[in-house]
Amino acid sequence: MKATGDLQLLKSINRSVLLRLVRAQSDLSRARLASLSGLTKSTVSALVRELLDEHWLSEAAAPVAAQGLGRPSTPLNIDSSKRVLVGIELAVDCLRLVCVSLSGVILTQTEEPLRDPQPANACQQVGSLVQRLCRQLDEKQLTLSGVGVCLPGSVDGGLVRLAPNLGWRDLPFSAMLADELGKLGIPAAHIHLQNDADAAALGEYEFGESGDDSLIFVNCDVGVGAGIVLNDRLFTGFLGTAGEIGHSILQVDGPLCSCGRRGCAETFIGASALARPKGVAKGGRYLGVLLQNLDAMFNPHVIVVGGRSCIDHPTLLEMARSAQQAYAQVAGLQAPEVRAARFGVQAAAVGAAALVLHQFLRPLLKESKHVPGN
Amino acid sequence: MKATGDLQLLKSINRSVLLRLVRAQSDLSRARLASLSGLTKSTVSALVRELLDEHWLSEAAAPVAAQGLGRPSTPLNIDSSKRVLVGIELAVDCLRLVCVSLSGVILTQTEEPLRDPQPANACQQVGSLVQRLCRQLDEKQLTLSGVGVCLPGSVDGGLVRLAPNLGWRDLPFSAMLADELGKLGIPAAHIHLQNDADAAALGEYEFGESGDDSLIFVNCDVGVGAGIVLNDRLFTGFLGTAGEIGHSILQVDGPLCSCGRRGCAETFIGASALARPKGVAKGGRYLGVLLQNLDAMFNPHVIVVGGRSCIDHPTLLEMARSAQQAYAQVAGLQAPEVRAARFGVQAAAVGAAALVLHQFLRPLLKESKHVPGN
Repeated sequence: MKATGDLQLLKSINRSVLLRLVRAQSDLSRARLASLSGLTKSTVSALVRELLDEHWLSEAAAPVAAQGLGRPSTPLNIDSSKRVLVGIELAVDCLRLVCVSLSGVILTQTEEPLRDPQPANACQQVGSLVQRLCRQLDEKQLTLSGVGVCLPGSVDGGLVRLAPNLGWRDLPFSAMLADELGKLGIPAAHIHLQNDADAAALGEYEFGESGDDSLIFVNCDVGVGAGIVLNDRLFTGFLGTAGEIGHSILQVDGPLCSCGRRGCAETFIGASALARPKGVAKGGRYLGVLLQNLDAMFNPHVIVVGGRSCIDHPTLLEMARSAQQAYAQVAGLQAPEVRAARFGVQAAAVGAAALVLHQFLRPLLKESKHVPGN
Repeated sequence: MKATGDLQLLKSINRSVLLRLVRAQSDLSRARLASLSGLTKSTVSALVRELLDEHWLSEAAAPVAAQGLGRPSTPLNIDSSKRVLVGIELAVDCLRLVCVSLSGVILTQTEEPLRDPQPANACQQVGSLVQRLCRQLDEKQLTLSGVGVCLPGSVDGGLVRLAPNLGWRDLPFSAMLADELGKLGIPAAHIHLQNDADAAALGEYEFGESGDDSLIFVNCDVGVGAGIVLNDRLFTGFLGTAGEIGHSILQVDGPLCSCGRRGCAETFIGASALARPKGVAKGGRYLGVLLQNLDAMFNPHVIVVGGRSCIDHPTLLEMARSAQQAYAQVAGLQAPEVRAARFGVQAAAVGAAALVLHQFLRPLLKESKHVPGN
């Protein structure tokens, strides 16, 4: 890498350090940022100037008198009014688009049926959704920071490896969407692609209470999957299939699963199992067992449960919690913290928006999974 | 931290960087080390001199002519002949002590019954074992790099939080052992304490094939537990209980477990279940399911299976593998890589020795787990 490249990267890192400090604590002054970051005051001043100009940060109109000695300082905060993150969930039957502020407030949301899962057509439909949104953003003088897209499938960088329910395999969806947006005259925005449960986990992590590392998002839908955040990063495993909790086995020789095995969690908690008579009571109990198993294996700080089935069956999570409490009680242990998804049905779409921010704040993070032979 | 402290830390980091580079690739020259590490040649020379003097590194007797231009260079390697790592497994019924070279070769091993699990007595017994060993090391002019101790319980820094089978709770075992060694006139060596499955995982990780990140060590004994290495570090979860796989549930409403719950993996795979008629065939099958569940959740690079039960029941692992293969086959997937513990019955003791090296190579690694309220 040339020296200019190194310097550019270093600058990105320093900018992200400052932004993360301001996110973690409100009303920081430049002097405090310098002391926390270890950067010189002049570097901090220059970078803060940039971040203000680009509307990542805002500063109070009037300086605040310092306590004791020293010059008055101007408190800095994240600017939640000018920049927006766009998140799109490409689900099997619909498209959900949300427009989110830098602090995780949903500004607008749209949902429409997915007209045709054929990749080129789906891409076109996403493109026109974004185009419509961009017009609205222009009118409101809002800046688009990037577009995150998530879908039910395994993703490797900008590539969809396999999305069985969409019928997609090895599809360069990021590049296709960038082309589409280019054709529509939308200025090249960064496009980030991710699995839906992974995105939802990032949404909870980036816009939730601080310190929720590690966090597992359990997505209850047609299938059951999990997104896992460990050490401030998505954890996706060696081949990118970590979190395939729907195919962990809860009952040896249990019911036949769509995957060919027997007794997978999905046969009890998947949408079709829940739709059966008494399915929700049974599914809730098995979900409790699955949460207990996740706790035994990962001992996460928090487990978040969301997805379509939690909306279709509002008692599901409570039943799971009861089962889990009962298990914890007989063992004399405390049940792990389990909470409902903060953004409900929008969890994945908001997560896709969070992905934009997550990547921006981690310039060294490569957007890829290891896939052997690639 | 004062500037001298900073400098000392920086030096430790630089030393560990050089050692890790030499471990990863044999016959490196000082010039190559400088280029790989980004350190100046004079810094590398000074640090290599120290590491040679302290017997971490060895250099070839005669320089090797460089290919093409340049001065001849002297290949550097890990010195496996002068320094030893001591690992002790404090099991419920016995003490195992191994003395291991820096490259993971077992030099000596001792096993004796644990005479009395009462902490002070156990500490004394460990002390006299180490004392005997130190005499042997002196005779052979070998240098002790540190002592790692592992035991079946949860460990937080130098503290044993809970070791139910030993009857220990909140015991400052590292400090007790340091006292004991001091009384015996053994020069203060670094003492590292860890859970046995965690230690075994580190043993496989540090002395196994490179690139085995992430790695899960499944320890089959009276109970069943796992040590997990992710991102080059032990992963122990929020409260230090990650890897409690013996209490993940494989059969809802299954047999009653010692923990009070039903259908825990331990009720099928624990030592007492395996001791029953046909227990090994059934246990093997359930172990296969447990391995499959670990793969679904973590998707690790490799799973290593070891522990007392694998020695008592040599067919256990093969049966687990068959079950796992069958599951993978019906789902049209490849079964994850599962291998037997490299160090057999010594896995935990060797792991305790590996712990010494692991910590030395990671000067920034704190030896503690988060426990709320502490």
